[in-house]
Amino acid sequence: MSASVSAPVRVALDAMGGDKAPGEIILGAVQAAREYGIGVYLVGREEVIRAELAKHDTTGLDLPIVHTDEVIEMDDHPATAVRRKKNASMILALQLVRDGKALGAVSAGNSGAMMAASLFTLKRLPGVDRPALGGIFPTKDKACLVIDMGANTDCKPEYLQQFALMGSIYMERIFNVPSPRVGLLANGEEESKGNQQVIDTHKLLKQNAAKLGINFIGNVEGRDIPGGVVDIVVCDGFVGNVVLKLSEGLAETLLGLIRAEMTSSLVNKLAAAILKPGLRKVFKRLDYAEYGGVPLLGINGSAIISHGRSNAKAIKNAIRVARQTAETGVAQAIAEGLTRIEQSEQPQPEVQQVDK
Amino acid sequence: MSASVSAPVRVALDAMGGDKAPGEIILGAVQAAREYGIGVYLVGREEVIRAELAKHDTTGLDLPIVHTDEVIEMDDHPATAVRRKKNASMILALQLVRDGKALGAVSAGNSGAMMAASLFTLKRLPGVDRPALGGIFPTKDKACLVIDMGANTDCKPEYLQQFALMGSIYMERIFNVPSPRVGLLANGEEESKGNQQVIDTHKLLKQNAAKLGINFIGNVEGRDIPGGVVDIVVCDGFVGNVVLKLSEGLAETLLGLIRAEMTSSLVNKLAAAILKPGLRKVFKRLDYAEYGGVPLLGINGSAIISHGRSNAKAIKNAIRVARQTAETGVAQAIAEGLTRIEQSEQPQPEVQQVDK
Repeated sequence: MSASVSAPVRVALDAMGGDKAPGEIILGAVQAAREYGIGVYLVGREEVIRAELAKHDTTGLDLPIVHTDEVIEMDDHPATAVRRKKNASMILALQLVRDGKALGAVSAGNSGAMMAASLFTLKRLPGVDRPALGGIFPTKDKACLVIDMGANTDCKPEYLQQFALMGSIYMERIFNVPSPRVGLLANGEEESKGNQQVIDTHKLLKQNAAKLGINFIGNVEGRDIPGGVVDIVVCDGFVGNVVLKLSEGLAETLLGLIRAEMTSSLVNKLAAAILKPGLRKVFKRLDYAEYGGVPLLGINGSAIISHGRSNAKAIKNAIRVARQTAETGVAQAIAEGLTRIEQSEQPQPEVQQVDK
Repeated sequence: MSASVSAPVRVALDAMGGDKAPGEIILGAVQAAREYGIGVYLVGREEVIRAELAKHDTTGLDLPIVHTDEVIEMDDHPATAVRRKKNASMILALQLVRDGKALGAVSAGNSGAMMAASLFTLKRLPGVDRPALGGIFPTKDKACLVIDMGANTDCKPEYLQQFALMGSIYMERIFNVPSPRVGLLANGEEESKGNQQVIDTHKLLKQNAAKLGINFIGNVEGRDIPGGVVDIVVCDGFVGNVVLKLSEGLAETLLGLIRAEMTSSLVNKLAAAILKPGLRKVFKRLDYAEYGGVPLLGINGSAIISHGRSNAKAIKNAIRVARQTAETGVAQAIAEGLTRIEQSEQPQPEVQQVDK
């Protein structure tokens, strides 16, 4: 299966970004090229990339190198790094998208910098107040998008309404969920629950959801995220970040405790060996690598921010998602959806305060 | 071991509150009376309580009944119920505390109503802006108090500072943690991280912690809660509620998936049987029943709000904690600590805005 087509379909990859760069990152690109027939621009230090590519069979794969010496490090200050390191690998990757040479960009490097660089290079879509990170959260039986997952700590109800719209479009197009269910994260299901921000957002969504094509089902609680009650959970980036990191930490702690018990004696080890294939299925479901990375939604292009710990599989999936996000027209659909928000806002009276 | 002493040491229990009332609730009281020598006022319908007590050997136990026909139901609106059902079992239990007849009150009933009734009956301590719920979160190797866990959705930095103080006193006295470590929940460890509320609270705590005897170690992230990095995690009640419910939901989902794998075949069931004692240790660590209930801190007395699903063990432990909270002088220590906050506020300039 050769990947070459007349007009190359390529994704730009920051080959230097991530804890496991360059080895796993470049391996991920090789796998994406082979499995999905996607061309990948490998952006970074040419000799390093060449040395890695030499370890694999890349016959017939479309993996052009874009050389740069500059790299944004994990501990660089995001905004400063983006301003000073104008030729950093992640920035050049994004410029390939901006210039129409790549469908999307992927980086597992400094995520704050990747966010800032995506905004700076690709710009926000007209009408978008705040681009947001949509994180995929594994649930009992499907994926749930938590948006915002950390891009915006302080949010207005209007931002959260936009998150609901952007998340709906993403889940519809990338996860093929028809009319995805949107829940607003709160401390109770009743519409009177929430902090002031959530109470106001609930009113706004209740008023506008139908017009905007958002399948808003009301408030959801923390337990409903792993419970898989909705396809999209809307929250501000402060809460979303706590949700993400708490979940990662809790799963790690819990699995660590279980693993320790399973290896605490020879008999336990033998019993655990029998259960291993089944448990591996459980662990796999919790594996962020399955989902590849997190899209920054609301920008004019496709940028995927991968976990710093990404392995080859995560990068492979991120490359697939970057292409899919571009090809299914997520950005255009968001821009169109936002004009519906603007129209719906024109003739409406101010959001009213509900008496309590 | 008889429990009678000359001046009876009693806790007041809402015998009608909880999903498993009255059976498990009253059994919990019997166990507390026998194991800890605590007298327990059983507040509720006399004939129901008598019928339950008849199932157990209560010889020598101090379990007086306080009869009332009125009960606040789980689906009653908290504030309305507290106003209308003036003789409800949880309210009478709290009045026994207010009148000096009981050391503390415990209810596994409608938690919103128990909070409202505690505030209404026992009143807040002088200087307390907002009483808060301190929830015990099981971690890798110890307990962590998350405060506030749901009493206050919108908080000012001054409230969060008080939560830090109240939580410190509770962990010191009830969990015997010397100089407990306090972390402020944020989306990153750097002091520049957080929403505006958290950034302002960080500044306030940094300025005042030493004077107040709070061992403030800075910001913590979601993953640090199960990681056991600190003894107290301070957050507003909206975030705290999300943390609590997400954790419960995630643990349930994860253990459910693992359990399903372990029983998916006869061979798996046999292997699982070998691992059972070890895994039970893990599950036990996650068992809210070990901690009994959640104190409402900042009120003039000891009120423990138990989980709706409380079993006898949870109630037994809640009764123990209610007594301990009273006997170790948690409320008095909070009141004293708050005068230190007031003193520290007198000569201080306004909290300054940090340039970003």
